[in-house]
Amino acid sequence: MSRRIAHRKAAIVLAAAGAFALACGEPRGDALKPQTGAGGGAAVAELMQARGLSEADVTAALKTYTPTGKKDEYYVFSSGGQSGQVIVIGVPSMRILKYIAVFTPEPWQGWGYGDAASESVFQGGRRRGFDMRWGDTHHPNLSETAGDYDGQFLFIGDKANARMAVINLTDFTTTQIVANPLLESDHGAAFVTPNTEYIIESSQYPTPLGGAFAPIEEYNEKYRGAATFWKFDRAAGRIVPEQSFAIELPPYMQDLSDAGKLVSDGWAFINSFNTERAIGGNMEGRPPLESGASQSDMDYLHVIDWKKAEALAKAGKTREIAGFPVIPLDVAVAEGVLAFVPEPKSPHGCDVTPDGRFIVVGGKLDTHATVFSFEKIKALMEAKDYAGTDPYGVPILDFQKSIQGQVELGLGPLHTVFDDRGNAYTSMFVESKIAKWSLADLKLIEKLPVHYNIGHIAAAHGDTVKPQGKWVIAMNKWAIDRFADVGPLLPQNFQLVDVSGPSMQLVYDMPIPLGEPHYTQIIAADRIKAVDHYTPVGFDVLTREKDANAVEGGKERIERRDDGVHVYMTQVRSHFTPDTIRVKQGERVHLHVTNVEQAKDATHGFGISSYNISLSIEPGEHNNVSFVADRAGVFPFYCLEFCSALHLEMAGYLIVEPAEAKTAGPARERGDRG
Amino acid sequence: MSRRIAHRKAAIVLAAAGAFALACGEPRGDALKPQTGAGGGAAVAELMQARGLSEADVTAALKTYTPTGKKDEYYVFSSGGQSGQVIVIGVPSMRILKYIAVFTPEPWQGWGYGDAASESVFQGGRRRGFDMRWGDTHHPNLSETAGDYDGQFLFIGDKANARMAVINLTDFTTTQIVANPLLESDHGAAFVTPNTEYIIESSQYPTPLGGAFAPIEEYNEKYRGAATFWKFDRAAGRIVPEQSFAIELPPYMQDLSDAGKLVSDGWAFINSFNTERAIGGNMEGRPPLESGASQSDMDYLHVIDWKKAEALAKAGKTREIAGFPVIPLDVAVAEGVLAFVPEPKSPHGCDVTPDGRFIVVGGKLDTHATVFSFEKIKALMEAKDYAGTDPYGVPILDFQKSIQGQVELGLGPLHTVFDDRGNAYTSMFVESKIAKWSLADLKLIEKLPVHYNIGHIAAAHGDTVKPQGKWVIAMNKWAIDRFADVGPLLPQNFQLVDVSGPSMQLVYDMPIPLGEPHYTQIIAADRIKAVDHYTPVGFDVLTREKDANAVEGGKERIERRDDGVHVYMTQVRSHFTPDTIRVKQGERVHLHVTNVEQAKDATHGFGISSYNISLSIEPGEHNNVSFVADRAGVFPFYCLEFCSALHLEMAGYLIVEPAEAKTAGPARERGDRG
Repeated sequence: MSRRIAHRKAAIVLAAAGAFALACGEPRGDALKPQTGAGGGAAVAELMQARGLSEADVTAALKTYTPTGKKDEYYVFSSGGQSGQVIVIGVPSMRILKYIAVFTPEPWQGWGYGDAASESVFQGGRRRGFDMRWGDTHHPNLSETAGDYDGQFLFIGDKANARMAVINLTDFTTTQIVANPLLESDHGAAFVTPNTEYIIESSQYPTPLGGAFAPIEEYNEKYRGAATFWKFDRAAGRIVPEQSFAIELPPYMQDLSDAGKLVSDGWAFINSFNTERAIGGNMEGRPPLESGASQSDMDYLHVIDWKKAEALAKAGKTREIAGFPVIPLDVAVAEGVLAFVPEPKSPHGCDVTPDGRFIVVGGKLDTHATVFSFEKIKALMEAKDYAGTDPYGVPILDFQKSIQGQVELGLGPLHTVFDDRGNAYTSMFVESKIAKWSLADLKLIEKLPVHYNIGHIAAAHGDTVKPQGKWVIAMNKWAIDRFADVGPLLPQNFQLVDVSGPSMQLVYDMPIPLGEPHYTQIIAADRIKAVDHYTPVGFDVLTREKDANAVEGGKERIERRDDGVHVYMTQVRSHFTPDTIRVKQGERVHLHVTNVEQAKDATHGFGISSYNISLSIEPGEHNNVSFVADRAGVFPFYCLEFCSALHLEMAGYLIVEPAEAKTAGPARERGDRG
Repeated sequence: MSRRIAHRKAAIVLAAAGAFALACGEPRGDALKPQTGAGGGAAVAELMQARGLSEADVTAALKTYTPTGKKDEYYVFSSGGQSGQVIVIGVPSMRILKYIAVFTPEPWQGWGYGDAASESVFQGGRRRGFDMRWGDTHHPNLSETAGDYDGQFLFIGDKANARMAVINLTDFTTTQIVANPLLESDHGAAFVTPNTEYIIESSQYPTPLGGAFAPIEEYNEKYRGAATFWKFDRAAGRIVPEQSFAIELPPYMQDLSDAGKLVSDGWAFINSFNTERAIGGNMEGRPPLESGASQSDMDYLHVIDWKKAEALAKAGKTREIAGFPVIPLDVAVAEGVLAFVPEPKSPHGCDVTPDGRFIVVGGKLDTHATVFSFEKIKALMEAKDYAGTDPYGVPILDFQKSIQGQVELGLGPLHTVFDDRGNAYTSMFVESKIAKWSLADLKLIEKLPVHYNIGHIAAAHGDTVKPQGKWVIAMNKWAIDRFADVGPLLPQNFQLVDVSGPSMQLVYDMPIPLGEPHYTQIIAADRIKAVDHYTPVGFDVLTREKDANAVEGGKERIERRDDGVHVYMTQVRSHFTPDTIRVKQGERVHLHVTNVEQAKDATHGFGISSYNISLSIEPGEHNNVSFVADRAGVFPFYCLEFCSALHLEMAGYLIVEPAEAKTAGPARERGDRG
C-alpha cells in the first residue's frame, strides 16, 4: 500500500467510525453493540479496515445485500448450459433460488426418477426412438404479451439434441419437451415472437434435414439449416407441433435469433457464420473448421418475414420432411420470405432494439457493433433492390444501404442489450469488457472491465419493448482467479452491474456452481405469480387438474388387479398410509401417491432402497409410479424431505417375497469366516 | 415507522453522509463519484434509506460481502440431500462454488454420460446387480489427521441405498462408491475416526442383513442394524472393502454417529430411536411408526469400542453375511465391544466434544442437551456395572451414573457443534433457534432465532479437536417466507451466524437451490490444495496416472480393430483432431480423447447429438467412451465449453453410414403436403 493510499484509508476509517458512533447514539440492535465500545459505527470502520473494503466495495455491498426477511426485486432465468437445467437467481442478491430440472433427470425434484408425469415429458423428447437424458440449454426466453414479459412461461432450447422445453412459471415445472424432427442441433432457440405466437428454433450445424444420411462430400447439396417456428397455445400451455412449420435454409451455420417487435413485428432475424461452408476434415487434408469458417469478411444476417411464411404454411406451400412441414428454400425465395444482408465478421449476437427499428449485430472477429435498419431492409426487399444472390438463390441486400451505422467498440463484440434511457450494452469477449453506447448517436460512452471473457449479457427486461434499466449482468465464460479453488473444472462468473447511474458500477461476482450458462432473462419479481401448493388435492402437474388416481384421506387401499398391485397411498406429516406393502417377486407395483397437505412448504418425498425411485410430492400433488418388484427382500421407503420433528419416523417397508418362497434371516446367512 | 425510529434513522443517514463525504474528500473510485454530489458517503446514507437497511444489516453486509478479486476464507462441504450431490460453498460470502456430482449423473461434469471413469465409479455402487443412479446424501465428513481436517478427502453416505462415496479434494472429483452389502439404508454415515483409519456407516431402518427376505412379523428375530467400519487407504485414496468389518446391532433405528477423539479415540458412539421396535402397519391394525416409535422416554446411545472390534475382526471372530465380515451381536456383547446408555427422548444428534471427554445428545422430544461422560461410561463398562440388558443381551448402563449433566435448552434440541472458547451451539428444531451454552458449567448463554426449523448445525472445524470459532451455519429445513417465490417446492435456508463476538449475529440468508442438505463441514480455505490442471497430460482421474490410451498431439489416428473403430483424438483451442469420423451403422466406436492443454480453465467438452454422451475434459485430462453407432445419419459433435472466440467452430461430424447403404438428402425426402 502506498503511503498516500494508506493515509487516505485511515482517514476514511476514522471518519466512518465517528459518523456511525454518532449515528448510533441510541444503539438499536444487540447485534451491533457488543462488537465495539463506540457502537456500530466503529464496527463498520473496523470491518472496512479488517476486510480491506474500499468505499466502492461498501456501496456495492449495500446495493446487493438483501437482509433476512427481505426479497429480491428481480428474477434471473438463466440457462444451465450442458447441465440441461435452468437456474433461477435473485437480483440484487445474486443468490440462486432454484435449479429447475428440464432435460436432465434430477432426483430432488423427482424429475425422471419414476414419476409418470416427468417420464411422459421425457418421452416427448425422444429422438429416433431413443431416450435423451441430458441437454445443452442455451437460450431461455420468457413468454411475452405485447412485447414485454408476462411471467407465465419460460422456453429453452437444447443445442445438443435440437429440442425445445416449456416451463410453467406458476410452479416452476417443465411440462413439455418437443424434439425437432428436422435438426440434429440448434442454437438460436428459444426466441419468442411479441405475443408468444411462435417460439423460434434455428439450426446450428447443418445436416441432412429429417435425420437422413448423406456423406459430407455432399454437404453443399444435401446438408441444410432450418428456422423452425413452434406454435404455442397459451391457454393449454403447450407447443402444438401440428400447427408449427419450418423454413429451409442454406448449409451455413445459423446462430442467434431474435423476433422483430413493434414496427418490425412479424419479422425474424438470424445471423450466421461459416457462409464459407467449410466442413472441417483436419485428418483428411482439409482445414479445421475454425480456420475454414473464418475466411470471408462478411457472413449473412437472415431476414425472415414470418407472417408471410405462416400464411404460406397455412396455404400448404410446404413439403413434409420427417412428417414436419417445411417451406422449401426456392419457395421462400420466390415468395419474398427470406433475404440476406452481409454482416461483418463471424457474427454472434443479433438483437432487436426496444423500438423494433434496428437490429444490432456484433462480429466476433470485427471491432464494431453494426446497426441494421429494419426500415431500410424492408424498403430494399420491397423494391427488390438486390446486390446479388447467394449460391442458393437467396437475394443479398447491399450492406451500406441496409445499415443505420456502425459503432467502433473494440475487440470481440458479441451481444447487445438495452436500458430505458436509450443506451445499449455490448459484451466484448476478447477485451473482457462491457461497452456502453448511445443508440441515438451511435457513440461509445464507457467501457467496464469484467472477469473474464464475457459471452452473453442481460439487462432487466432488456430485450423487450420496455427495458427497465437498473441492472445488467455480464455472463463471463472464464472465472480463473475470482473464486476459491475447486479443482480443474472452474465455475463461470456472473457479474452484476448497476447501470442506474451515469457510470456503470460492478457490484457483485457470482460463481455458477453447476453448468455453463449462455443467456438469461431478467424479469421484475412482481410479474411472477407462483403458487405455493396445488389445488385441488390430487393435482397432476401435466394435465393441470386432479389426477384420475388421486387418493383422499380415508380412501387409501391396496388393490390386486390383472395388471399388478395398485397401492393408493396418502402422505401427511408424518406417515404414509399404507406404510406396509407386501408383494411377490415379479409383480408389477402401481404406486399412486397423493400428498394431501395444503400447507406451504409441506413437501413430502418418496424414496426407496435399490429401485432408483425418487419422488418429490408437493402439497396437494399426486404422483404415479409403476415398477416391477423384480428384487426380492425388504426395502425401506421413507420421506425424503425433513417435514417434521418425526420426519425420520415417516417410513415404511416394501416387502417382496421371493418367487420361490424361502425365508432367511441373519442366522441362516452366517458362515464362519476364514 | 414510528416517529422515534424515523427520527433516529434520519439522523443516522445524515451523519453517515457527512462522514463519508468527508472521508471521500479525495474520491478514489469512479464508481462512487457519480451517484451523489456529496461523494460516496451520501451514497451509503441514501442506500440505507432507499433499501431500508438497519445498522445491523450494514455490518452484516460488510462481514459477508466479498469484493471482486477477493476469495472466501472457508469452504463449506454440504450434503446435497436427495439430489445425490455435494455442495461447495464459500464463507463468508455464502456463494455456491460448485456442485460435485457423486451419486447422480450430471452432464456438465461429464459424470455418468459416457465417460468410462465415471461409469466405473457407478459400477462400484451397484446393488443386487442393478445400477443406482441417485442417492440421498446425508452426512459429509472430511478426512482427518490427528483429529483435525487435513483437506485431502471428503466422504459422504447415501441414506437411500446404503452406500459410501470418496471424493478427492485435489480435483473435487468422486473417485469411488461402495455399496454396503449388509444394509438397505444408512444414516450415521460418513463419520471418520481421528486419523481416517475407518469411515463409519451405521444403519437406519432395520432389514434382514445381506439383502435376505423375512416377513415383517419376524422383525424382532431377523431384522437387524449394523455399524460398518470401512477401512480407508489414504495413500491409494480408496476404501478397502476387504479390510472392513461390521458389528451386528439390534433392530432399533440407529441414527447419527460420531467417533471418539483424544481420550476417547478408539471408540464410536451412535444414537438410536425406535427401541420400541415399532414396525408401522397403519392399514394392518398396527399404529403408524411415528407414534409406535415414540412411546418410551429413553432410547439407547450405542457405545462401541472399535479398536477392540477391529482386533476381533482381524482375529476372524466374525461371520460372513453377503461376503462381508460381521461381528455377531453375541460376540460383541461377550467381548465387551458394545454397551448401551439410555438417552432421552427420540434422540437426534450425537456429538463428541473437542477434548473427546463428552458426548452431547439432543432429544427431539426432550428439552435438554444431555452431556454423557466418556470417563464415567468407560469406568462403568470396565467394572461391568450394568443396570440391566436389552432383549438382545446388550448391557445397559445407568443413565445418571453415565452423564456429566443436562442443559435445559428448550424445544427440540438436535445437533451440537463447538467453538474455540468452550461454547457449544445446539440446533433447536421445534423452537427454530440456536442455543449457545457453556461446556464448562452446562449453562445456557443465549438463543438466536433462525428461519425456520433448523436441522443440523455446523461450525468452522466445529467437530474436530481444534474448533476455530468465528462462523456457525444454521441449516434450516423450511424457508417459507424468506425468498422470492419459486413454486411449491421451496429451497432450504442456510443462515450464517457470526459467533466471534460475545453475542451471535445472524449475517446471511442463503437459499439452497437444489437438494435438501443435511450436514456440512466447514474447513479453512488454506487446508485445501486443489490443482487447476492435470499432469501428466493424458491423466485418468481414477488411476491418477497417465491413461493407457492417452493421445499426444501429432499422434491422433483412427484405427479399425476387431472390437470396433478406435478414435484417438486430441482437443486444443479450437478444434478436435480428427474432426470427421466415418463409421458404419452398428460398429462400436471407442473414443479416446485427450485435452492436451495445460492452461487453467481451458476445459473442453464433448457433446454429440442423439447419443446421450456428454464429456467434460479438463486441461490435461483423458476420457474414454465406448458406444455402438446404432443410429444412421449425420451427428454433429462440438465442444460444450465456451473455450475461445472460435468456440462455436470447435465442432465435427460423426457420419454413420446406414447398414444397408442408401443415401438421402432433403430433396429425396420431400413430398407435397396436403
